[in-house]
Amino acid sequence: DGHDVGALLVTDEINVRYASGFTGDSSYLLVTPDTATMLSDGRYATQLQQECPELRHAVRMPSKPMLRLLAEQIAALGDIRVGFESHSVSVAMHRGMREHEAMKEMCSGVTWIETTGVVESLRLIKDANEVALIRRAIDIAERTYRSVTAKLRGDWTELEIAHEMESTMRVLGAEGVSFAAIIAAGPSGALPHYRPRKVTLADSASLLMDFGAKYCGYASDITRTLSRRSQSTSSGGSGDRFRRAYDAVLEAQLAAIDAIAPGVPSKEVDAIARGVLERHGLGDAFLHGLGHGIGLQIHESPRMSAISEETLAAGMVVTVEPGVYFAGEFGIRIEDDVLITPGGREVLTTLGKGLDDCPLML
Amino acid sequence: DGHDVGALLVTDEINVRYASGFTGDSSYLLVTPDTATMLSDGRYATQLQQECPELRHAVRMPSKPMLRLLAEQIAALGDIRVGFESHSVSVAMHRGMREHEAMKEMCSGVTWIETTGVVESLRLIKDANEVALIRRAIDIAERTYRSVTAKLRGDWTELEIAHEMESTMRVLGAEGVSFAAIIAAGPSGALPHYRPRKVTLADSASLLMDFGAKYCGYASDITRTLSRRSQSTSSGGSGDRFRRAYDAVLEAQLAAIDAIAPGVPSKEVDAIARGVLERHGLGDAFLHGLGHGIGLQIHESPRMSAISEETLAAGMVVTVEPGVYFAGEFGIRIEDDVLITPGGREVLTTLGKGLDDCPLML
Repeated sequence: DGHDVGALLVTDEINVRYASGFTGDSSYLLVTPDTATMLSDGRYATQLQQECPELRHAVRMPSKPMLRLLAEQIAALGDIRVGFESHSVSVAMHRGMREHEAMKEMCSGVTWIETTGVVESLRLIKDANEVALIRRAIDIAERTYRSVTAKLRGDWTELEIAHEMESTMRVLGAEGVSFAAIIAAGPSGALPHYRPRKVTLADSASLLMDFGAKYCGYASDITRTLSRRSQSTSSGGSGDRFRRAYDAVLEAQLAAIDAIAPGVPSKEVDAIARGVLERHGLGDAFLHGLGHGIGLQIHESPRMSAISEETLAAGMVVTVEPGVYFAGEFGIRIEDDVLITPGGREVLTTLGKGLDDCPLML
Repeated sequence: DGHDVGALLVTDEINVRYASGFTGDSSYLLVTPDTATMLSDGRYATQLQQECPELRHAVRMPSKPMLRLLAEQIAALGDIRVGFESHSVSVAMHRGMREHEAMKEMCSGVTWIETTGVVESLRLIKDANEVALIRRAIDIAERTYRSVTAKLRGDWTELEIAHEMESTMRVLGAEGVSFAAIIAAGPSGALPHYRPRKVTLADSASLLMDFGAKYCGYASDITRTLSRRSQSTSSGGSGDRFRRAYDAVLEAQLAAIDAIAPGVPSKEVDAIARGVLERHGLGDAFLHGLGHGIGLQIHESPRMSAISEETLAAGMVVTVEPGVYFAGEFGIRIEDDVLITPGGREVLTTLGKGLDDCPLML
């Protein structure tokens, strides 16, 4: 993996889950070429046996701090170089790894090595099983969207819609939402990270819905912006501006998706969407990056933004979600989940996304 | 605060919320004696104006990395000592704070100082408004418990109960659950951190329910262990063992609550509960610490365990939750939320907790 270490300590909770199958928290995975040991506490003894029976388990009692258990396990490996995840270990824990009494006693010959992206590089490329789980998470989210948008009413609040979506996802077999849904009526759509409130849809001209389900740990992430027939067909005024902006965002999204293929730097895909919106005079209204990887986390590598340094590869799954935001007026975002394939890409999302495919019927 | 610094960088998301009122993520608060600046990105520009209009806002565009924005803001303060939160800043970010190009250019005279618990020490003591919010979170959780336990049926699954509880909490005004409820039928109660599955209650002899609501950011956390009339009245066999264990846990919980008062080391409270269970021969079955603080986080200071070094003080709110666990048989945990008062303590939870107060009626 490019790091010259004799053991790797995995502390990031999602990485522990990915590498071990263990779904609890407060537990670490210590890997050597020959062994894999879960460091955990008594609350999880039985769950460890159920979820990762093939690993060694080192379970501490409440009176033993984790750093002491860690010292004992590391000491048993001898004077070696131990890699740790530099994004996950805090400065405070790092100090403990060097200065805790048990560490100084037992691990004085151990060298701690900062590592970056070791497990993440494995997570980056989804295998067939992971893609199948993401497809299920997408399917549940899409069925939920269809069910809920079919019964929208002007007296529903944004918050009620969000709760109805979460409830529907669970009925359909999801563990829950992959993130708190953004349900934003009218001008609230101009807040990219808005949270639904107790305000009714009333006669809102548009409704931005950004939602996803979690299935066996894996996330989906979809956005559609619904608009009223009157909004999308009236000529002149704000309806006209909305339509033009909508078509520009869709054009940007389609162009970006078309550019996705193995070997393409992710920032180039961002630049393509940004270029389309700039040509429409909307560059300043595109306030965020184009998208991000999805998997066990709702936001993971690769990022697709102007400052990304990653290159796309087959097996990655990313969101493509350009958006434009006009404070006090409206926001528009269109987001699909896309699998990078050896020959290019497959859009996993199936919901229609033309202006007329997303009517807001109240 | 004991740290000799000219500015403090707050990066922990909960601490940022506590100190600024901002409820988004990916944003930092930089505080000096004279100024308070939120460092964030374009997605949050409007939310910052709504949630913390009294603070300065430094908002970066997508092309500017956070470390560059941070460097600019720090550089404007001159060559000073800047405290950062050592539990929140990762080793990787810490490296960036010293070695990122913009930092080296602009902040070469800045000294970074590790700090611990600066904002947490403020969060530790709840003011009247915070206690009121926790009371609301408890009230919602208790009404939910009463509603759901009143209509339990043998053909409900653990997962359906968990979802019904979450849905009820939201109807009652909660933002959602404060943590994923543990709903564990029969032997599954022996897993302290179990997650509900698609298994029906059927004729389970006991049901462990650990649940809480989140209200305006603040958490409640309650556990009750229900048991069937047959379980609690039959003599001999497992019913007998369950009853004796239940009474021991309740005795331990009541003794611990009685010991709570300002000035008491939290580990002494843990030791009192542990001592009661040991006298009943159940010390080995008590697999975890006695409790923890609640507030904006479901687990926060003070901890009450054998290795805690904190002392209780008026204004703290803690859980008291001894439990015993017998693999393959059952688990019992009784948990209340307790406010430390100048004169001692107030149990905020009001649900009955005697064996007969918690019947499992299917």
